[in-house]
Order: sequence, then structure tokens, then C-alpha cells
Amino acid sequence: MFQHNYLRDYATQLFERMGCPTQDAQIVADVLIAAELRGIPSHGLMRVKDYFQMVDAGRINVNPKVKIIHETPSTATVDGDNALGPIAAKYSMRLAIEKAKTAGTGWIATKNSNHFGIAGYYSMMALEHDMTGIAMTNANPLVVPTFSVSKFMGTNPIAVAIPTLKQPPFVADFATTPIARGKLAIMGKKGLKAPIGLVQDSKGNPTDDPDTLLHGGAILPLGGDTIHGGHKGYCMTALVDIFSSVFSGANFGPFVPPQVAYLPLLEKSVGEGLGHFFGAMRVDAFRPAEEFKGKMDEWIDTFRNAKSGESQPPVMIPGDPERLNEEKLKKIGITVIPQVLAELNEVAERLGVEKLSD
Amino acid sequence: MFQHNYLRDYATQLFERMGCPTQDAQIVADVLIAAELRGIPSHGLMRVKDYFQMVDAGRINVNPKVKIIHETPSTATVDGDNALGPIAAKYSMRLAIEKAKTAGTGWIATKNSNHFGIAGYYSMMALEHDMTGIAMTNANPLVVPTFSVSKFMGTNPIAVAIPTLKQPPFVADFATTPIARGKLAIMGKKGLKAPIGLVQDSKGNPTDDPDTLLHGGAILPLGGDTIHGGHKGYCMTALVDIFSSVFSGANFGPFVPPQVAYLPLLEKSVGEGLGHFFGAMRVDAFRPAEEFKGKMDEWIDTFRNAKSGESQPPVMIPGDPERLNEEKLKKIGITVIPQVLAELNEVAERLGVEKLSD
Repeated sequence: MFQHNYLRDYATQLFERMGCPTQDAQIVADVLIAAELRGIPSHGLMRVKDYFQMVDAGRINVNPKVKIIHETPSTATVDGDNALGPIAAKYSMRLAIEKAKTAGTGWIATKNSNHFGIAGYYSMMALEHDMTGIAMTNANPLVVPTFSVSKFMGTNPIAVAIPTLKQPPFVADFATTPIARGKLAIMGKKGLKAPIGLVQDSKGNPTDDPDTLLHGGAILPLGGDTIHGGHKGYCMTALVDIFSSVFSGANFGPFVPPQVAYLPLLEKSVGEGLGHFFGAMRVDAFRPAEEFKGKMDEWIDTFRNAKSGESQPPVMIPGDPERLNEEKLKKIGITVIPQVLAELNEVAERLGVEKLSD
Repeated sequence: MFQHNYLRDYATQLFERMGCPTQDAQIVADVLIAAELRGIPSHGLMRVKDYFQMVDAGRINVNPKVKIIHETPSTATVDGDNALGPIAAKYSMRLAIEKAKTAGTGWIATKNSNHFGIAGYYSMMALEHDMTGIAMTNANPLVVPTFSVSKFMGTNPIAVAIPTLKQPPFVADFATTPIARGKLAIMGKKGLKAPIGLVQDSKGNPTDDPDTLLHGGAILPLGGDTIHGGHKGYCMTALVDIFSSVFSGANFGPFVPPQVAYLPLLEKSVGEGLGHFFGAMRVDAFRPAEEFKGKMDEWIDTFRNAKSGESQPPVMIPGDPERLNEEKLKKIGITVIPQVLAELNEVAERLGVEKLSD
């Protein structure tokens, strides 16, 4: 068990040793620790080894010149210069917020970037400015369009954070697929079957094999088959891909470059790197801020008091579980599982940094 | 079978007789006929009777002064003055497009409106301006938040239309729920069971009863239960509700006013009327227009050539089925089912208009 500040400083040191300027190292570490605190360890410290190996293989630029390449009063396109994703992403979200200050809203498409961690981190940057924040990214292809066996889409997450007055903010942060690869892997390791409707086999038929991705299978879009609205999930995942890539000039769908060094670079490229899309909207661009935020409180209060079904838990507001997790882990500390601890120490050794120990 | 132009003129005449200015009557008729052509008759001529009865009961204003009540360079809030939805919606989408011309993007929140027909209609208005168009609306509550039995959300649709160079445009237009009320009603009439994962009973348990809405049951969010990602569907439906209501000052979730005159007005109101949200984004606000649209063609071409699963149909691009339907019905004409024909003629009689006959 480690205090979050300790882990953040430790990760900062690792990224500094990889060659990142201190300020950049702090950003990347902060994004990873935010994932740990919010209960999404799949996007936390277990990414350090992946990021390190990508840097080590020369596939990520640790001294990037992230820059605006196109703009209007409410928009910009950003070239991430092949930075670590959090560097390009935080630059872009800050720019969205700046644009919104004068234009009411700001919308940034970012190309030539890499895995950016949790989308929620960037959307939540807008909250302290009394803005709604939006962040999305495309990702490595694991998901099929409806009727297909071609893995052409990622689990493409989208996050939206909306300010409130007295209630905690509304923060929706979700992959646009019914399940993430990590959760399938855990089912497989535990010897469990996957519920029907999450994945398909290599021929496109329903399967309960949680390891189907290893056998040519794929993740279905949210909803599953068309009877259950899976074509709507396909629309959503496709939209996140298009906003992240066609808008920015990044690679789309099947051409998103792998974010782990053990996978070879793809032969074909249709853009530059991986792409993101960000938005910031001043709440007072629509109505007075107090009025907006008060009404948002009322919305949350109404929904939190929705009646639960038989033997079902209380109704939650998007962002509740992550916030409660964060409050708890800030007090009791973050558990680093042995496998991740070993990986961190392997990276530390390569970088000449003292090992992390309990 | 009727030619679409004939039906459009006929519907225009009905709305004129209801008291709409000619220009407004034309807009409402055009939106309803667009739904018929695109294969969404649930939002077509069968709404004429509903709209008429709402007007007849004095619950909709046929001489509205739709106006801007708040704005920034890239945003505005519109008061629909209790207009027929298509009037407030088309005004708002035009305004979004105007804003985008100077600010790069335009975002409009609209309150005090009513049922607006198909969201796709408004999103597609952006295409001829080389803009991406977005439209969404909240709707009468039929859908539960995850874990709940409280019907607090509508089937809240969202539409996004993206311009292309040579390919037909990408037009996603979908309810954020796995199924619409109309389709459940058809299953019920045919004596079919509803597949598990679409609806729940009055206690929140899974059911295959397609008439569950009549017995206190509800529609589930996209994804169904949490194992299948239903909490992500809940996030989506909630977001459409919040953008349509909290942003604009319209009623949210359970307080959206009924859009049929046979249901009484609700006792409690938390805003004005029903709400929508619109966006327009110049494609050249992000990269040169030809480049953007050419890349969009490439995206579509790639996805259309995705490999189909075993005994599954060809992979489609969002908007394909509706466009093909429209091309076909523009040639062969639109079938008006006897029940809707009878309803139209009932309205015609009330308004002193000659009956519609084959």
C-alpha cells in the first residue's frame, strides 16, 4: 500500500529518467495516478512498462513540440509530435478551455498522439472553469462493426464532465463497448465464461469464450447484436473514431498504431499517430452559471432518488463510483499488485532508479 | 401509394388549416415526409393526429415567436415559444450553421419546444454547408437508469451527419435505447416475445413481455443490464437529456411534458417545454475541406469493405438503409397504412380539408 503522492513522485522520476522534461513527467504521472485513484488500474501504473518500452524502442518522442496547425475562434487542430498521449492531450484540453473563454466553446482535434490514459482526466479539467468538458480518443482495433468479423474499431472511450453547484460533478467516462479487453482477460484467467452478447468468435457467431480475442474473435459494439441495438453502439464507436481521426488527421480504425512495443508497427498508415478530440463549453454560454449549476444539482438529486429495482443497489450518478474510490484511496493508499510492482521495478532498474518497495 | 410531393403538399395544407403560417406548415410537413421517405414512419404522418390534437387542445402555439435569449460567438439559447417542434428545431439548426460560419462551430440549446420528428433531418441540414451536423432531443420518460424502476428518461435520440466528397454522407441517427416503444407494441400485437435484455418488469426484473410498458415495466438503456454495459447506455441517454434540458432551461427527464393530448399535463415542471440541442461544425475549422471529405470517403470505403460474418449481410455505413429507402420511395411512392389514412382523414374532416384518397 502506497500513498498516492509517493507513487506520483516515483512515477514522475521514472518518466524524467526516460528523458521527459520535469513538467511533462509530472503530467504523465498525474494522469496514471488519477486512474489508480479512480479505480481504473488498467489505465494506471500498469501502463508505465508499456510507455517505457515504446519510448525505449524510439516509437514515442519524449521531447515533443506539440503545436497548433489550424484554427478558428472556437476550434483548433493540434499536432502532438508523437508525444506521450497525456502531454498532447493536456495541451489540447487547455487550449479548448482557452478557446471557450472567448468563443463560448472550444473544440480541439489532436493527431500524432499516443495512448492518453483515462478520458475522464481531461474532461474534468473543464470543471474548475465552470465549463462542461468532453474528451474522447480512438484506440487499437478490437471491436467489429455490426455484421462484421473485421476488427476495425477500438473500445473508443468518451468522457463528459458537467459542473454542479453543491452536488459533486456529473462525470461520465466510458468505453463505447460493453466490456474492455482487461475484464475479458480476467474472466479467462478465472476460468469463467463470458456472458453471451459481449464477444463473438472468428466467424462472427456468438460465443462465451472470454479468450476469443486470442482466437480471432472480437468484442461486439455496445448492445451486442442488432436485436439488442448493437448497431447503435457501432454508430457511437464509429463516431468517436471519426472525431478523433478524420477531424484531426490521425489514423482511423484499423490503422491506429499499436500502443505496446511488442506489436510491430502497421504496414499501412492513413494519417499520423493516434487521435483524440476535446471540447470545453462555458456553462454561462447557455444560461447564467448559478442557474445552470443549480439545475444540474436538481437533475442529480432527482436521479439519485430514483427507486431501485427489487434487490438492486441504489441508483448512481455517473462519476459516483470513481469519486468514492478516489476519496477512499486518498486516505488508505493505493495497492500495487505484485505483477505491476515487478514491472515497475524492472523499468526502475533499466533507468537506474531505486526500486519501489512496500 | 402516394407520391411524396403530393403527401407533403397535403400535410402542409393540414398544418395551414391548423393555423400555422404557410412557411411553418411547409417545414413541419417536410420533416414528417422526410421520416416517411427514410423508413421511419413512426415519426411520419402518424404524428399529424397527435400534433393536431395538441394544437386543438391549445397545448401547442401555432404562431410562435421563436427567439434567441442568450448567446456567445459560438453558442445560443433559443426559446421555442411552445412551437411545434420542427419550427423551433429548424430555426435553431439554422442558427447553429450561421454561428459556425464565423466561429468555426455553433451550438444551440433550445427550450420550450415540442416533439421535433427525426433528429437526422436537422443534422443533415449542415451537410450542404460542408459542416458536420448534430441534433438531439429529450423525450417522454419510458427508460430507467441502471438499477432503477423509475422511468426517468426518454429514448433520447442523437443524430450526427458528416460530409463526404464522393461517398454518400455518414448519417447516424439513433435512439440511445435498444428498442423504441413502437417496435415493442408491434411485437405485442403479433403475439411475439421480446428478447431478454430490452425491457424489465415493474419490479426491475428481466422480462420478455413486449407489453411490459403497459404493466409498469420499462425500457432498459442501450446494453441492457450492467454485465452487458447498460450503465454506459444510461450515461448516453442521461447526457442527451442534460444537453437538451439543463443547457437550455427545458424540463428534464421525468418532467418532459407529454406530447399527446390524451395524456394530462404533468403537475410538476422544472423548466419550459421539451428541449433539444444542436451543433454545426465547419469541416474546414479543422483541416482543408477537400482533405477532410476525402479522408471521410476513405473511412467509409474501408468500413464498407469490412468482411461480413458467417451468413451475415454486408456491413453498412450509418445512413445507408435510410438513404436507400429514400431513393426507392421517391420513385415508387409512400404507402400510408389504413390506420394512418383514417387518422389523416379524421383530421382533414375536422379542418374542412378534402379527404386523402388513393
